[in-house]
Formats: sequence, C-alpha cells, structure tokens
Amino acid sequence: MNFSSIKQMGFLGLWGESVDAVDFYTAKTERLSRDISLEREKITSNPKSIMAAAFVSFKTRWGAAVCAQTQQCRNPTIWLTEWAPEPRDVYWENLSIPFVFLTIRRLIVAVAFFFLTFFFVIPIAIVQSLANIESIEKALPFLKPIIEVKVIKSFIQGFLPGIALKIFLLFLPTILMIMSKFEGFISLSALERRSASRYYFFQFINVFLGSIITGTAFQQLNNFIHQSTNEIPKTIGASIPMKATFFITYIMVDGWAGVAAEILRLKPLIIYHLKNFFFVKTEKDREEAMDPGTIGFNTGEPQIQLYFLLGLVYAIVTPILLPFIIVFFALAFVVFRHQIINVYNQEYESAAAYWPDVHLRIIVALIISQLLLMGLLSTKEAASSTPLLITLPVLTIWFHRFCKGRYEPAFVRNPLQEAMMKDTLERAREPNLNLKGFLQNAYIHPVFKSADDDKIDVVMEEWEEEPSLIATKRTSKRSTPLSSKHGRSSFSSPEANKERSKT
Amino acid sequence: MNFSSIKQMGFLGLWGESVDAVDFYTAKTERLSRDISLEREKITSNPKSIMAAAFVSFKTRWGAAVCAQTQQCRNPTIWLTEWAPEPRDVYWENLSIPFVFLTIRRLIVAVAFFFLTFFFVIPIAIVQSLANIESIEKALPFLKPIIEVKVIKSFIQGFLPGIALKIFLLFLPTILMIMSKFEGFISLSALERRSASRYYFFQFINVFLGSIITGTAFQQLNNFIHQSTNEIPKTIGASIPMKATFFITYIMVDGWAGVAAEILRLKPLIIYHLKNFFFVKTEKDREEAMDPGTIGFNTGEPQIQLYFLLGLVYAIVTPILLPFIIVFFALAFVVFRHQIINVYNQEYESAAAYWPDVHLRIIVALIISQLLLMGLLSTKEAASSTPLLITLPVLTIWFHRFCKGRYEPAFVRNPLQEAMMKDTLERAREPNLNLKGFLQNAYIHPVFKSADDDKIDVVMEEWEEEPSLIATKRTSKRSTPLSSKHGRSSFSSPEANKERSKT
Repeated sequence: MNFSSIKQMGFLGLWGESVDAVDFYTAKTERLSRDISLEREKITSNPKSIMAAAFVSFKTRWGAAVCAQTQQCRNPTIWLTEWAPEPRDVYWENLSIPFVFLTIRRLIVAVAFFFLTFFFVIPIAIVQSLANIESIEKALPFLKPIIEVKVIKSFIQGFLPGIALKIFLLFLPTILMIMSKFEGFISLSALERRSASRYYFFQFINVFLGSIITGTAFQQLNNFIHQSTNEIPKTIGASIPMKATFFITYIMVDGWAGVAAEILRLKPLIIYHLKNFFFVKTEKDREEAMDPGTIGFNTGEPQIQLYFLLGLVYAIVTPILLPFIIVFFALAFVVFRHQIINVYNQEYESAAAYWPDVHLRIIVALIISQLLLMGLLSTKEAASSTPLLITLPVLTIWFHRFCKGRYEPAFVRNPLQEAMMKDTLERAREPNLNLKGFLQNAYIHPVFKSADDDKIDVVMEEWEEEPSLIATKRTSKRSTPLSSKHGRSSFSSPEANKERSKT
Repeated sequence: MNFSSIKQMGFLGLWGESVDAVDFYTAKTERLSRDISLEREKITSNPKSIMAAAFVSFKTRWGAAVCAQTQQCRNPTIWLTEWAPEPRDVYWENLSIPFVFLTIRRLIVAVAFFFLTFFFVIPIAIVQSLANIESIEKALPFLKPIIEVKVIKSFIQGFLPGIALKIFLLFLPTILMIMSKFEGFISLSALERRSASRYYFFQFINVFLGSIITGTAFQQLNNFIHQSTNEIPKTIGASIPMKATFFITYIMVDGWAGVAAEILRLKPLIIYHLKNFFFVKTEKDREEAMDPGTIGFNTGEPQIQLYFLLGLVYAIVTPILLPFIIVFFALAFVVFRHQIINVYNQEYESAAAYWPDVHLRIIVALIISQLLLMGLLSTKEAASSTPLLITLPVLTIWFHRFCKGRYEPAFVRNPLQEAMMKDTLERAREPNLNLKGFLQNAYIHPVFKSADDDKIDVVMEEWEEEPSLIATKRTSKRSTPLSSKHGRSSFSSPEANKERSKT
C-alpha cells in the first residue's frame, strides 16, 4: 500500500480517519452509478419527461423520404416532419419548441441582431468613457503608484480604449451562437450555419463598410437613411479606390497572419501546457487536454467569404489587391486542408449543407461589387454607361434564382428515385440485414448514452467496413460516437426520420 | 322545299348550280368530320406530337398527395410533379416548357413589366404629340371642313390627348395576361392570379402614388432614386391629407359608378343586341351571344384591393373618407354576390387559391399605410414618436410570416391525414367504385374532346348528385365541361396528379 492509495476522511482530505483510497472510491463510484441509473429510470418512466418530439426510423429509405417531404397533419404547425440530423449533430435542447414560440423567438432574435449590428458601439463607448486612467485611479487608489510609472501609463492609455471593443469582438461568435440557439434550430450544423450568416453580415457592415466610409455602423445607418438612394453606391464607390492600401494591409495583417496563427496554434499550445501542468493526472485527462476541438465553421467561413467579397469589389477597381487575395487563398487552402485532415475533430457530418449559404453569399458579394462599380463609374466620366450596368445585377439575381431551382433541392430533399435505387440495391445485396440493433441506440439522448458506450462502439464496428481514401482524424471516437462514413448516413441519415410533434 | 334550304354553288352563294342545302351541308359535315378524325388519329399516332408532360391518375388520394409533394428525380428540373389543376382550369399551351426556358421567360417578363409600369407613358406621350389636330388635318386633309366645326374641334381637342392613355389602360389587362401566359403558368387560375398581382402593382404605382405626388411613374422613380430614403415617406405622407378630396371623388366616380355599371352591364347589352341583329341565326348562336363570360378576377380583385389600401391609408389621416369606402364595399358585396350567383359563368374552381395573394396584398397595404403614417407624423410635431412606430411594420411582417407558416400549406399541399381519411371513408362507403371510366376522359385536350362531349356529360351526371345550397349558374354545361361541385375535385382534383416531365 503506497501513499497515494491512502485517503483521509476529514476536511479536504487533510485529516481524519484513514481508509484505503481504492476501496473508498470504488464504493463511491458504485453509489453514484446506482444513483444515476435510478435517476434514469425515473426519467424514463415519468410521463412529464416525455418530449413533444420523436425520432422515427423507417424500414426503407423510400418511406423516410416520403414522410420527410410531405405534410402529415391538417394543421401544419402541430405535426412537423423533417429529416433528422445526424445523431452527433442533434441539438437536444431545442427539439420540442412549439411553432408559435419559434416564430416569436425568430422575431426577437431578428430585432436583437439588428440592434447588435448597428448599435453595438454605444455600450462599448460607455465602457470606454468609464475605463480611462483617471477613473481607475479613483476607484482603485492603491494602484496609483504602479499606473503612474510612465511606461505602464502610456501602454494603458494606448491599449485601454480598444480593449472593450476587442473583448466584444472576441465574444461576438459566442453571442451569435447563443442567438441561434435561442432561435430554436435543432442541429449543431444549422446553429453554426445561422451564426455564420450573421457573422458575415456583421463583418460586412462593420469591417467592410465601416472601413470604407469610416464611421460606426450606427452613423452609416443614419447616413444611408438621410442620403438619396443613388448617392449611397456613389459615396461608397468613390471611396473604394482610396481604401485599397488599407485593405491590402488588412489582408496581410488579418488574413496572412491569421492563417499563419492557425497553423501555429500558439494559443492551444499554451493552454495545453497550462492544463498539463495543473490538471492532468491520468492518461484520459491528457487526451482531453490534447483535444483540438472542431474547426469552428461559424467564424472561419464568413472570414474567408469576406476576402472573397474584397476580391470581387477590387478586381476591377484596383487589381493590385488581387495577388494578395490569391496568396491568402492559396495559404488558407493548404493550411485548412492540413488542419481538417490532421488536427481538428469533426463534430458532425452535414452533407455539404453549408453550400447553399456560401453560394448565396457569393451572389450577394457579386451584386455588391456590381452596385459599387456602378456608383464609382457614375462619378467618373463613364457616367452614361451606368444604366447599362444595371443588367449585371439583374442577370446575377436571375442566375441565383435559376441555381436555387436547379440545385437547392439536392440539399433539402432526398429524391425518391435515389431512395428507391438504394433500397433495391440493399435488398439484393444484404437480404437479411437487421437494422434494428443499430437503430435502437442511434438516436439516444447523451444523458442515457454514457453507460452504453461500449455497446454502441461494438455496433459501430460492424458499420465501419469501408476503407477511407485519406486517413483523417475524422473517426475519432471520443467526440464522434457514431461514424459518418457509411453510405447510409451520408444524407442526414435517410433511414431515420425525425418527427417533431408540437403542441 | 322552302327557300332557305336551297344552296347555290357559285361565288358567295349568289349564283351557280342550285342544290338541296340540307344534303349539301350534311355531306360537308361528314367530310369535315372524317378529316377531323383522320387528323386526330395522325396526331395520336405521331411520336412527334407527344408532349413532355402527362396527367397521372392515382388509385388513392394518398398516392397522389405523396407524388405531388415529393421530388421524384435526382435532377429537380427534368421531372417535376405538382397538383394538376382542374380539367377546365388547364392552360394547355404551357404544359411542357423546360425549366431553363421557364426561368428565362420569367426574367424577360419581369424586366418587361418593370418597363411597362415605369415607362409606359413614353410611347403614349409620343402618340399624343403626333395625334393633335394639326397633324390630323395634314394627314387627312379631306376631314378639314368637319374638324373645323367649332363644337367638334373643341371636343377633339379635349378628348384626343387622353384617348391614347385610355386605349392603353383598356388593353392593360390583356397585355398583363399575355405576359403571364408567356411566363408559362399551366392553369388559367394561376394566369389570372399573376395578372392580378401585376395589375395591383401597376394601379398602386400609377393610380395611388401617381395621384398623390402628381407625376408619371417614371418621374416618381427618378424622384425616389434621387431622394433620401427617409424623405420618401415624408414627401408622400405630407401630401396624403391634401389628396383626400380627390380620392373621395375617385371612389365615387370610379368605385360607386363602376359597381353601378357592373350591375347595369350596358356594354354586354349593346354587344348582345348588335350580335343578335347581325350574326344570330340559330338557337345555339343566340345562346353564345348571351354568354356573359367569366367575372374576370384579374381586374376586379386588384381594383377592390386598391380601395382597401385607400381605406387603410386614410383611416387615421382623414377618416371622413371611410364612409365612402364602406358604401363602396357594401355596394360591391351586394352587386358582385348577385353577379357571381346569377350572371357569370364560372370558368374554373381553384379552391380559394387566390386567398394567399389577397392576404399578402392586405399586408402590403398595411405596411404602406404605416410607413406613410410615419412619414406624415415626422413632418408634424409628433416627430419624436416616429421611431416607436417602426415596431408596427416589424410586427406586421412578423404576423405575415407567422400566417405563411401556419396557413399557407393549406393552399399548397394536401396533408396525408386528410387524404388517408377520405380514402378510408370512400373504401368503406363505396367499395366497388370504379374511377377509370370517369378519369379516362377527365384530362383530355379540348381538340379531342368535342366529339365525346355527350359521353362525358353522361359520366358527369353520375357525379352530380350532391344538392347545391344556392342555385347558381355554376354548372353551366357550355363553358364548364366538368362540374366542380363534387367533393373529389374540390382540392385541385386530388385523385389526378399531373406529372410534368421536362427535357
């Protein structure tokens, strides 16, 4: 019996009766497991714990496709059917929000986001006005001797005004994510998609427009309301060429350096070593400290799209900016490819559900660049060509509508043809396939899951027969309870269709 | 043998060999019938006459509902399924337009409609400048003595400038209908719905805004582009109270008098007597001359909605206008109720497909009235209350979105619950129902129909067993080859689903 296995029963384990630590913790674990299973049983049998939402599995993909695409009930708000997200992708908290509350929440979030985008400077300005050196000296007089040191004072004076803004921008993705969660999306991928759209809009207003016409979003809004409609593209368009050097700097400082920081991963390295030093005791702790997390599409993707917008806007006006953009994209491609394959864990498989959003944002960027070009040209000698340029946005919008009709259904619906083909193929290949064992535990609330982890892993093994072309970290078991490589779950798990019945 | 049965074979029946007219026309009819049936057979057997569209009938409503609501093919543009319109409602010419052409046509029509709305005054102004008395005298010098008569001259001078505009406005519904047809809608009801939206927009721009800010739509557009965004509602809002008397006159002259003219039906009366005098020879001719046609939703409905808009806009600003509106609506209700029940033939049954459009236009009218109220108040002493009023349009838009989610599916989809209920009920009530005989000739191109008219009528009789509460002209056989009263075809004929396969 060595020292580490002795446990004292008193305060903080510092004194009291000594017992064998292994015995003590074994007993404690057993007691806790019993409590957990009791609590689980209580929840399972309690009728109040029943949610107004269910995951329904179908024997055929055809049945699931029909059920997901049709309206079941006369009242379209009390029984909604939609494709279930992947099991890993489910956001359990939002599963059963009634339709009326959903629409109210959407309204609240829309209003809140409007104020966030255009008025976020007001609270920050207030904080900044409070957080100057004089008020700090007044509130915390004992700091006065330190602050009065000249180096520190000038550092604080230079740093303090920006710090409130920096902190806000650091928390912005989190705020947007909370908004999306409040809005009631039922999958992590949908949450991230919505956050990404909002982040892009915020960046467009506050970084792109904010840099070009220099002023807070609120002042811009005020300007736009009081300016005539055809003056707006003129004002912006005319100042675009002047801001080219600023954006070249921005691309280098934010873009290139950002990509470099991405591959360095300095922050995770420091955090890992801190964790390693203070918290890591077992091998499992170390593994958890090593966990790189997910790639965070909700901030990375809009950032990249902002550079796309910059490229489109400056392509005609100041082509010298383009090489910088190209270098950024080349770097970003190499780095993010590496990061996705070798570093990050994949949290979910959303079957390219991001693409329609990305496409929309590219179209929006195109239209913005065309409008600004029109504004710029109308201030130059080519003013008479401006009306002809109107055909450009009209054709772009038309192209978007065409693509929406032609390609969007591929992301939203599962055609019956494909479902039937796969069903028939499967029936011919594996006539005795028994899905029940797999499906029984596929959609299970994480609270009930932990105990059955091994069981699921066993079932999973059966499903993981396909060889992967590139060895990635994607099948990492810890964060991915279910592999997504198998064909059956490639399209938002066609065999399992979630029915949400709402009251 | 009386005179009327003698036919002369020469030019215009004035000379030549005399033959018995009954024999001659019987022979001619037979020859024509033979030609027609030959031509029909040729078309039926010719593979080039096969359209890339088909009407598919299902054994159960459930099957039809599933097929109409799901995507069949991997490429969503080559095989579209949608609810078939009622047989009477089908617009055969547009049945098989490929998706790409549809989107191109939509673009062309959108651009054309924009120019029609905002630039229609330009050609009219040109015509007006040409059509003055001097140029008429120059072109047609022999009319000079007549024109120089003082009464006629002043009449022409007063009348001529307006006549080009009047003729244009007379043809406007036809132009809009041609646009809708070109756009490729497959049912008459959809054509009329789209024309109605366009007509409403045209009226809103050219009658409502045109009267308030006095100027052609093109000048308005120019103003709006060069005016600051918050000035537009101010300009319009400020001039609204001044125009109240004009709109009261407008309601009386156009609204009240229009309703009175509707019940008088003076124009159809004159046309009937002219036709009766010149063309009517047989009983069938007389019946055709009596035919009142359909009610023409595409012009009547937007007209009524314009009065709704006027009522909403003036409700707060100049409530004295409201009694005039109420009198108009009361009159219109009585008159149109009478006309629909006793006068007009019903061309199709679209199952209230108009309502979503009407609802949207009411919402738009509400938002316009709120914006104009904000504009008006901001010019008065209540300027500081304007920002608070912004909540009104926000809440209105939210209400619209809620209604769209809650009620629109009832107009677009057929819930499986209802389909299944009706199927089960029918199977229990009429287990031996044979639909084939009815469905075989339900969707048949009018070209093939005439010969089988009697046959269809016989089949129809079986279906017309339900008593109607109010005896209307709705079942008029001549223009309505299929009755729409029976429950089975009440929702765009759920038992027959049209599949459009496009190349």
